[in-house]
Amino acid sequence: MVHGAMGERSKYDLVMRLALERGFFMPSSEIYGDAPAGFWDYGPLGVALKNKFIELWRRELVKRDDMLEIDGAQILSKNVFRASGHLESFVDPIAKCGKCKAIYRLDKLIEERTGIHVPERASLEDMRKLVEEHGIRCGRCGGELTDFSHFNMMFRVGVGVAGLDAYLRPETCQSIFIDFLRIYKTMRRKLPFAIAQVGKSFRNEISPRQGLLRMREFYQAEIEVFFNPRKANDFPKADPILDYKLRLQPIGEDSVKDVSCRDALESRLISSKLVAYYLALIQQFYEKAGIPREKIRLRELDEDERAFYAAEAWDLEVETSLGWIELVACNNRGEHDLGGHERLSGQEMTVLDDGERVLPNVFELSMGIDRSLYCILENSIYLVNNRIILKLPPYLAPIQAAVLPLLSKEPFKSEAMRIYRSLKQDFDAVYDASGSIGRRYARYDEIGVPVDITIDHQTLEDRTVTVRFRDSTIQLRVEESDLMNFLRDHVKIR
Amino acid sequence: MVHGAMGERSKYDLVMRLALERGFFMPSSEIYGDAPAGFWDYGPLGVALKNKFIELWRRELVKRDDMLEIDGAQILSKNVFRASGHLESFVDPIAKCGKCKAIYRLDKLIEERTGIHVPERASLEDMRKLVEEHGIRCGRCGGELTDFSHFNMMFRVGVGVAGLDAYLRPETCQSIFIDFLRIYKTMRRKLPFAIAQVGKSFRNEISPRQGLLRMREFYQAEIEVFFNPRKANDFPKADPILDYKLRLQPIGEDSVKDVSCRDALESRLISSKLVAYYLALIQQFYEKAGIPREKIRLRELDEDERAFYAAEAWDLEVETSLGWIELVACNNRGEHDLGGHERLSGQEMTVLDDGERVLPNVFELSMGIDRSLYCILENSIYLVNNRIILKLPPYLAPIQAAVLPLLSKEPFKSEAMRIYRSLKQDFDAVYDASGSIGRRYARYDEIGVPVDITIDHQTLEDRTVTVRFRDSTIQLRVEESDLMNFLRDHVKIR
Repeated sequence: MVHGAMGERSKYDLVMRLALERGFFMPSSEIYGDAPAGFWDYGPLGVALKNKFIELWRRELVKRDDMLEIDGAQILSKNVFRASGHLESFVDPIAKCGKCKAIYRLDKLIEERTGIHVPERASLEDMRKLVEEHGIRCGRCGGELTDFSHFNMMFRVGVGVAGLDAYLRPETCQSIFIDFLRIYKTMRRKLPFAIAQVGKSFRNEISPRQGLLRMREFYQAEIEVFFNPRKANDFPKADPILDYKLRLQPIGEDSVKDVSCRDALESRLISSKLVAYYLALIQQFYEKAGIPREKIRLRELDEDERAFYAAEAWDLEVETSLGWIELVACNNRGEHDLGGHERLSGQEMTVLDDGERVLPNVFELSMGIDRSLYCILENSIYLVNNRIILKLPPYLAPIQAAVLPLLSKEPFKSEAMRIYRSLKQDFDAVYDASGSIGRRYARYDEIGVPVDITIDHQTLEDRTVTVRFRDSTIQLRVEESDLMNFLRDHVKIR
Repeated sequence: MVHGAMGERSKYDLVMRLALERGFFMPSSEIYGDAPAGFWDYGPLGVALKNKFIELWRRELVKRDDMLEIDGAQILSKNVFRASGHLESFVDPIAKCGKCKAIYRLDKLIEERTGIHVPERASLEDMRKLVEEHGIRCGRCGGELTDFSHFNMMFRVGVGVAGLDAYLRPETCQSIFIDFLRIYKTMRRKLPFAIAQVGKSFRNEISPRQGLLRMREFYQAEIEVFFNPRKANDFPKADPILDYKLRLQPIGEDSVKDVSCRDALESRLISSKLVAYYLALIQQFYEKAGIPREKIRLRELDEDERAFYAAEAWDLEVETSLGWIELVACNNRGEHDLGGHERLSGQEMTVLDDGERVLPNVFELSMGIDRSLYCILENSIYLVNNRIILKLPPYLAPIQAAVLPLLSKEPFKSEAMRIYRSLKQDFDAVYDASGSIGRRYARYDEIGVPVDITIDHQTLEDRTVTVRFRDSTIQLRVEESDLMNFLRDHVKIR
């Protein structure tokens, strides 16, 4: 269905142009020259798309799995990040040009210049050697690189008149760990169960780039599953998904294969039923969000790539014109989180599980929302006869229906306005009377409106309206009295 | 309906106890001793209540009035706050005890000790005189007050390796002003129209206090109406609300009177139809949110109380056990915002309005979400026979239905679980089999669940369930096949 010569790279440009011209998102503070990079604002269509994506996440993950959702403060105390390890380890290696003072992220610079992959845990000394061996110098002025150091990516804030150290959270999940005990007790749960959270996180990236893909302030949706490590296979909830096929790329493989959860467990590609179940849930979620199966993969990370505390790690990635993009990090974090907070706070974090005292282990699904939205937009955008059609699933469409009088005169306008008013509080609807009807169809195809409702001559006679479908351009007549039910059914999550 | 001797003050305690024990909200980082005051986390019930409150706001204000909603970055550049005046003026007067170094917010300290109201615009010198005249000293050690100064309440963050000055927004609305032009153009609007935003704001309060009432990190829902100041009375949208009665307390009056919008306009209590219309909308919103009319007032602020740029200012306040609490500041901000950004950015902010070039004026409805939730909880909480019943409107209830097997054994449990599973993705439902049925009713009355669905002996025979209503305790039988429709109708916004 893609017509015209649209190069892969241009798909990114196409999404960005649509985003800016139609109000999906835009750089923040753009009227000012001192606006720092890596901050973006969602416009009206972006807000609606994001809210619907979060609703889908809530329905298909949180509610489906009976998770508990919390919403914690974004500014947390210093001890939280001392315990989590962020104060010490949440750092990027950097170097400065001795001449023009440009600052570089060292590992990325080395990778760009040499093609050599720098492991997460490489030391500054390792990197200094690579810089010397390959004669890497400043890309701007050719100056020598100096001041090799680690830069902590958390944003510090001073609280109170005395300016007590606190930090903007670099991930939402810390609130889940520090609130774990109270939630466990007040909500009367047993292991295994999950706590979820959606909200902003903040990272002082050295080189933010590419729109929503690497931001300094961004939305995450994180899920932390608490479980008894001796019972990760005693997990009957997994039974209904055992035949579901995961898109796996295990360590050492260079292609993706469809493997049922059952086979992946039997061949020990996946360590436990619990992990298989949550990998299935997250893959199913992205299929519902409109990403074609064949563009999804669950790539296992080798030791070099994964965090030091992770015993098992899978990244859910989606293929785009910019390559595979990581959308969800799925990590078995073991005892790292509750253990760390237990040691520093002195607050015992164990719970009773069928008579056994357990320090719960954590399996995490850490999702980037903004980049998910980018991938959904890129996968939905089509050029047909040089016009954009945004083929979003109807339940993700920012605007669900455009109500259009066929002619911009009475009585069409009043009738259309009356119908619009009857719909607008229950649906995301828009009224538009300006321009030819064909031009208006195109205007709403471009932003993914799944149905246009036209009030025409026949409406005045028999109280039916013309409904036109975005993807097929098929038109049919619907009774005005049936419009609410028709729309509700059409935008329902399936 | 209130039984038992519940003092007014104890209502606050009752809400706080319920919040902590049942997971509405809790202090953030509470396991650590270094947790700064004024930060709170929402637990599962709090998240659900907040989301439903925001949905109501979206429906009854944003969609009803065809507003545009955006979601901007929380960290904004220094120039934004230079233009807005926050860098210079968003300050609180403070003083330090020369002996024990305790820090006081000066205006509040003077008011507490003397009962004298210190105007917003009082100088440090004015306050120093009051301190001397009344012999005010440190409340902790009796030491002399010193170091009179102004403290800026914005949280600074340093962006990038160089630590470029930026700030966490102290109000959400600045994004709306700096994005105004792009939104205006991309969304093809004409004056008057409104842009809305919901999100976090941050203020480094000197003395955060009283749970959700004065926080350092809090949720706002702000609406900025852009209009041509010469046309604030040329506003046909106001016609349908002219007979609606506002609860007004104008300047100089010490009681509230019911005045129709029409009468308020004729007697010039309110300056324009535009202002009357939005005051009506915001009052209607709180009535829908379950606050009784007689506990709402719109209090006009005199010159001493209102911001220097505000030509007209009304606070929507709600009466609680702690007195009247300000929930929404309704301000005519004139040209202050767009004018300020136009001057500093050099970006012309005027738009064409029927051929006339206009710098739009702004009427603002700035709502505090957290404190609104507190007021809703306090107004919904009842003690009946020494048990709490939380009489939330059904559409605000965090959990909409509890599904309960009459007996904790088969086949009741499986049947109840089956019904729970059929409901849980479309509703906020819970399944509970533990304890006597009476105890479970009480457990769910306490957190405001509007209906309990019991699976009993008759269910097994004729596929009907017992539905029990929280407020009336009336029970009736509903066909299982009709349960979805019944629930949908019961939790619908009315």
